[in-house]
Amino acid sequence: MTDLTRRGLFAGGAAAVGALAAGAAGATPASASAAPLTPGDGGRAVEPFHGPHQAGIATDPQAHAAFVAFDLLKDTGREAVVRMLRLLTDDVRRLAAGHPALADTEPELAAVPARLTVTFGFGPGLFRRAGLASPVEPLPPFKRIDRLEERWSGGDLLLQICADDPLTVAHALRMTVKDARSFARVRWVQRGFRRGLLTQPRGVTQRNVMGQVDGTVNPRPGTPEFDRAVWITGGPLGGGTTLVLRRIRAEMETWDAADRTAKEFTVGRTLATGAPLTGRLETDEPDFTRLSPAGFPVIAEYAHVRRARVDGATIFRRVYNYDDGLSPGGEPDTGLLFASFQADVERQFLPIQRSLAEADLLNEWTTPTGSAVFAVPPGCSPGGYVGETLLA
Amino acid sequence: MTDLTRRGLFAGGAAAVGALAAGAAGATPASASAAPLTPGDGGRAVEPFHGPHQAGIATDPQAHAAFVAFDLLKDTGREAVVRMLRLLTDDVRRLAAGHPALADTEPELAAVPARLTVTFGFGPGLFRRAGLASPVEPLPPFKRIDRLEERWSGGDLLLQICADDPLTVAHALRMTVKDARSFARVRWVQRGFRRGLLTQPRGVTQRNVMGQVDGTVNPRPGTPEFDRAVWITGGPLGGGTTLVLRRIRAEMETWDAADRTAKEFTVGRTLATGAPLTGRLETDEPDFTRLSPAGFPVIAEYAHVRRARVDGATIFRRVYNYDDGLSPGGEPDTGLLFASFQADVERQFLPIQRSLAEADLLNEWTTPTGSAVFAVPPGCSPGGYVGETLLA
Repeated sequence: MTDLTRRGLFAGGAAAVGALAAGAAGATPASASAAPLTPGDGGRAVEPFHGPHQAGIATDPQAHAAFVAFDLLKDTGREAVVRMLRLLTDDVRRLAAGHPALADTEPELAAVPARLTVTFGFGPGLFRRAGLASPVEPLPPFKRIDRLEERWSGGDLLLQICADDPLTVAHALRMTVKDARSFARVRWVQRGFRRGLLTQPRGVTQRNVMGQVDGTVNPRPGTPEFDRAVWITGGPLGGGTTLVLRRIRAEMETWDAADRTAKEFTVGRTLATGAPLTGRLETDEPDFTRLSPAGFPVIAEYAHVRRARVDGATIFRRVYNYDDGLSPGGEPDTGLLFASFQADVERQFLPIQRSLAEADLLNEWTTPTGSAVFAVPPGCSPGGYVGETLLA
Repeated sequence: MTDLTRRGLFAGGAAAVGALAAGAAGATPASASAAPLTPGDGGRAVEPFHGPHQAGIATDPQAHAAFVAFDLLKDTGREAVVRMLRLLTDDVRRLAAGHPALADTEPELAAVPARLTVTFGFGPGLFRRAGLASPVEPLPPFKRIDRLEERWSGGDLLLQICADDPLTVAHALRMTVKDARSFARVRWVQRGFRRGLLTQPRGVTQRNVMGQVDGTVNPRPGTPEFDRAVWITGGPLGGGTTLVLRRIRAEMETWDAADRTAKEFTVGRTLATGAPLTGRLETDEPDFTRLSPAGFPVIAEYAHVRRARVDGATIFRRVYNYDDGLSPGGEPDTGLLFASFQADVERQFLPIQRSLAEADLLNEWTTPTGSAVFAVPPGCSPGGYVGETLLA
């Protein structure tokens, strides 16, 4: 990567460049983690908006996210959908570069892009409204585990707004919601967070609110495995993908009451390192055949790590934590915004989901309360808009 | 500052030190803003817990906050209050150092202190329960502006939990709420954010969700002006202070409908730089006597910047943004968690508040929806607990 390219990644182009620019250009986490940066630089870092894929998928996860879903208004037809997408694309193109949206009412807040990405997803309703067959449908019910609530489920249009600064997320949310208003109503918004670049080096697997190392087996962006798992090839969605967003409440009261042995038995990994119970390192491959001296599998038959492995089914998880409520008795409403990207929901997500729903010890401590599925169109060119390959 | 001291500021003590350590030790924002840091280092930075003052007041504001208020249970008497405070002090002492709380159920989450501070405030109810006269009372009503809601107001005990990582805040909130549970019920929790160290250099004044540069005239920690304004001298609260927390909703729909001229007229400062309308730089002193060619004051009589100046009344604002809801029509519930520290509520906060409540153009676009006042005890020693000067 040339210095010129790297400089171009900063809004304004005047900054010293370090780890953030390397990351923004898609360097692997490990290679980017040790470079120094100057406090504040992260505010000017930008993620490229244009390209064959939308940003916010292979992008190294930012610290903050808001997922907002819309229902199209009754009179929003195909032509209006196109106008809406043109308008929102224009907003996002500017904001991601650190420039105000055209009708920006707080333009100064746009000057800190902080790696802002806004990723568009289309629900079944948007396709129907445009007179197209929908390539996605809601997941089938998983009656043993689902406690789905309307207020966290479904939606015609999704925007996944991510940045390393929550004020940047708030501003992008405000601007896009205002411009979507003539075409759609807000159905729900879900806000999430992960450890940020300031507080955890790149390449370290995140822990979730339950304390588990979460995401060890994720394919790595930039690898053929990732590309195969995530990107759709050919057709109007070529270069796109699908997003399943599940809101999964962590039952912290009972989880906290379990002892460490029970927790590790449940997950099949140690809590301290995330290593499988048959290994030493987080990255060690679990040995599902190993037996204890008493003759039982070291990794239990219904352990999460075993049930989540389904031959030939790979998904890419880009997960955020949420922590919203607190009852008078101190019970939190906390858990995961489980965002999973895959080329094919039916062949990749569902086999894993079925395996987990059928028998996963972790189900005792997790409750899906929201579910939504979106087709994620490919990226667009400087003159285009997101969705044009489907709607033009 | 010796290298030894600086190393001691990191949990584990093994890190290279940069801007964060300097900031943690109380260096001025300006001097700390240019030093490089390694991504991830910020996770290990710690703020000292012990000392004459509680942490989280003069502490350079962290990026994330949760304010949680409790009501004492009916049978929580003075002796139980002391036990509760001993327990919570022990939790916070450990967590702030990057160690798990004694009964920590997710100990691994404690390994990223990220400059965690937990600041204790005592409401009138706690003093009464302990058989003491309360040094603080709720603010008098401001009927012209207040639209206070019970769910954001009052409380016997406050914990202000701040850190540069939201997962750290979530974990500290979980641990303290669980340990408070035998003594108190959660009354409310309010979560806030500011631009973080990664995304905005130290020493740059923050913008709020309305886009205004917010906090220009704040006294700077480490200066005699700050010490005079904030710390109580003498008596059992000596070294302590008081906290007024006002939840102030920003009426973004109408604010966004106003043009820039109207906004700047309202505030008395330019939006672009935060400079007073009579000056060029943010730090220029407003000239309240200057007249326009037409003979009117350049800074209007009821401009916010003018009404907020009351001779002899200085407060220290440590303000966070909040952004919570979103109606189907896209109206946000967003605004400020206006946290103000001052030695004397009556002499410092109230004169300013009365001046603003009486006539401030900004009132058109801001609505106080919550209000609470707390006495903030001094800090404690390694063997002590927060509140011991009042309750021992």
